[in-house]
Amino acid sequence: MKIQTFVEYFDEPLYLESGRILESYHLKYETYGETNQDASNVIVVFHALTGSHHAAGRYENDTKVGWWDPLIGDGKTLDTTKYCVLCVNVLGSCFGSTGPMSFEGKEKEPMRLNFPVITISDMVTAQINLFKKIGIKSAYAVIGGSMGGMQALCLAVEHPEFTKRAICLASTYATSPWAIAFNKIAMEGVMRDHRFKNGNYDIKDFEEEGMDSFAIGRMAGHISFLSPYSMDKKFGRNYVETDGLYELFGRFQIEKYLEYNGHSFAKRFDPLSYLYIIKAMNIFDATRNYDSLADSLKHIKAKLTLISFKGDYLFMPEEMEFIRATLEDMGRGDKVDYFCIDSNYGHDAFLVEYDKFDFYIKKALEAKQ
Amino acid sequence: MKIQTFVEYFDEPLYLESGRILESYHLKYETYGETNQDASNVIVVFHALTGSHHAAGRYENDTKVGWWDPLIGDGKTLDTTKYCVLCVNVLGSCFGSTGPMSFEGKEKEPMRLNFPVITISDMVTAQINLFKKIGIKSAYAVIGGSMGGMQALCLAVEHPEFTKRAICLASTYATSPWAIAFNKIAMEGVMRDHRFKNGNYDIKDFEEEGMDSFAIGRMAGHISFLSPYSMDKKFGRNYVETDGLYELFGRFQIEKYLEYNGHSFAKRFDPLSYLYIIKAMNIFDATRNYDSLADSLKHIKAKLTLISFKGDYLFMPEEMEFIRATLEDMGRGDKVDYFCIDSNYGHDAFLVEYDKFDFYIKKALEAKQ
Repeated sequence: MKIQTFVEYFDEPLYLESGRILESYHLKYETYGETNQDASNVIVVFHALTGSHHAAGRYENDTKVGWWDPLIGDGKTLDTTKYCVLCVNVLGSCFGSTGPMSFEGKEKEPMRLNFPVITISDMVTAQINLFKKIGIKSAYAVIGGSMGGMQALCLAVEHPEFTKRAICLASTYATSPWAIAFNKIAMEGVMRDHRFKNGNYDIKDFEEEGMDSFAIGRMAGHISFLSPYSMDKKFGRNYVETDGLYELFGRFQIEKYLEYNGHSFAKRFDPLSYLYIIKAMNIFDATRNYDSLADSLKHIKAKLTLISFKGDYLFMPEEMEFIRATLEDMGRGDKVDYFCIDSNYGHDAFLVEYDKFDFYIKKALEAKQ
Repeated sequence: MKIQTFVEYFDEPLYLESGRILESYHLKYETYGETNQDASNVIVVFHALTGSHHAAGRYENDTKVGWWDPLIGDGKTLDTTKYCVLCVNVLGSCFGSTGPMSFEGKEKEPMRLNFPVITISDMVTAQINLFKKIGIKSAYAVIGGSMGGMQALCLAVEHPEFTKRAICLASTYATSPWAIAFNKIAMEGVMRDHRFKNGNYDIKDFEEEGMDSFAIGRMAGHISFLSPYSMDKKFGRNYVETDGLYELFGRFQIEKYLEYNGHSFAKRFDPLSYLYIIKAMNIFDATRNYDSLADSLKHIKAKLTLISFKGDYLFMPEEMEFIRATLEDMGRGDKVDYFCIDSNYGHDAFLVEYDKFDFYIKKALEAKQ
């Protein structure tokens, strides 16, 4: 499998949903496999909140493979001997695309909190511009989990000619107040962190010491990614050895897990990028510019495949099921397949339980459209 | 209904589960109605994490009634014309009983972080001592929701002669890692709050400005008390007007709700009390000193009534159902009634959906034992 990483720069303005404008911008992306002659074999992969364009393979000196590596490669579900898989970073990211901390064109300073609010629709518009620029007129399929699924759905609605297949996993048509509530803790965690300084932070402060309210906020995310059942299985009521501040209180394994993940996240993810991408998720509502979900979905030309997970405590299966039901009510049941996977792994299932859902992705890719 | 508030002081030591000793202690409690001649008509009510002994009625100049007022009063489910209802504060509380910030005997300073870890069993031991001292040899019933249910179950196991009926709502036999995870955010929120100062805080700092990591931690609690369905119903994706720091990002009603509750909680609840009581909940495991849950439950002589709520996202119905199933497997199915109430209100249902469960409490109280 051939892996290539690119950055594409745009010197023309990007008009955002908020009414604001990015005078110039750039997007990072990665490809696995190669395009065929007419570039009709491209599968676009969208990443989730804290993901990146690095979806598969291993960089030199890296211990970890890309976040969807089990699915992407020669002979795998997204078969790189047949398809050119392209994973594209989102606007707002801290992994090489335009975001609150990036340097644009002639700018000498990053925009920080002056960076405009970005929506999922804005992300997708920029991505479509990228695809056009690099010669991809349409995709064989687009696919993503969680916020990646939002991008896939948004693209299917707003750029209906671009893809024949859209596959959404563990996602929703509009972020629920339940998910916004978890995100609220994350956002307050960032903003109240003493190192944040109203956005004027020195990123080194976050790299050095991780446990402050930024980390606390991230813990809420980690709860929402799991489920009561997966926590029972993984941690139960087991204790770990005590130390320092925790000595008086004892310490459970689940507590250590949350500490570790909160702590390490604050070291690796930019706080402003986190704020802006969370906000984009919160704002996401496929019905916003339409009279109803049906009014929005009627634009879709792609065949939609929706995969939810029974034990997802962040984006409930009912939310994806509602998309299916709406399409069926519209007399367009033939344009949607819905599968609810029996998993207790929580929201993280789309990053873990490959054996349970890769069959449905394969099926969606092989079906003629 | 006659309401009386008392504080009872104990000059003898209380031996705690941790091996440590409280040289003296005191407990606050409130009674509604009056005891009969042999004090055999007492119903003991246990409160939840942030509750108090003030379960019913209204204090002079107070805008709010006690936390279970719809259930307690003349002619109500806990009928104060028949029963003397007694609600007792827990050890560790900041509402008038011995806790990390209370002054004991000759002490000139509160113990703060030197206060010993308290368990649910310790709370119940102190409460049993209180009941004995004020002439209550046994209770007609004990009842509580959430952490109150833990106290009721603990009492039934460890002081089996004391009550003929034990009623637990929205509770569990052992705090799950899922609940511990939410509590973790609350605990870190307290400890990392810049005003906490490793326990050496000035409580006035918390009364004046509420929004710091203590408040962020409390927000996690408020998520766990609700459910995706109750949030949909209550807030949906509705926005509120924007202001200040939030202007850039817009603000959802669910966000305002969490802010308000996090903020106001930090003003009204002592941070160390919060830490110690949460810890007591985390530690709670009715099987801890026994070989199994069956080995624990075999001590119970009271008739157990378990009421859980289908949409409880903190203490899942399965946890209460497991108590019932265990008793049935032991051939003691006659000693337990289990009801799962169809409610989407989340964990808070035991404080809200009275119409749906008061019948089962009445039934439990009226049954001859």
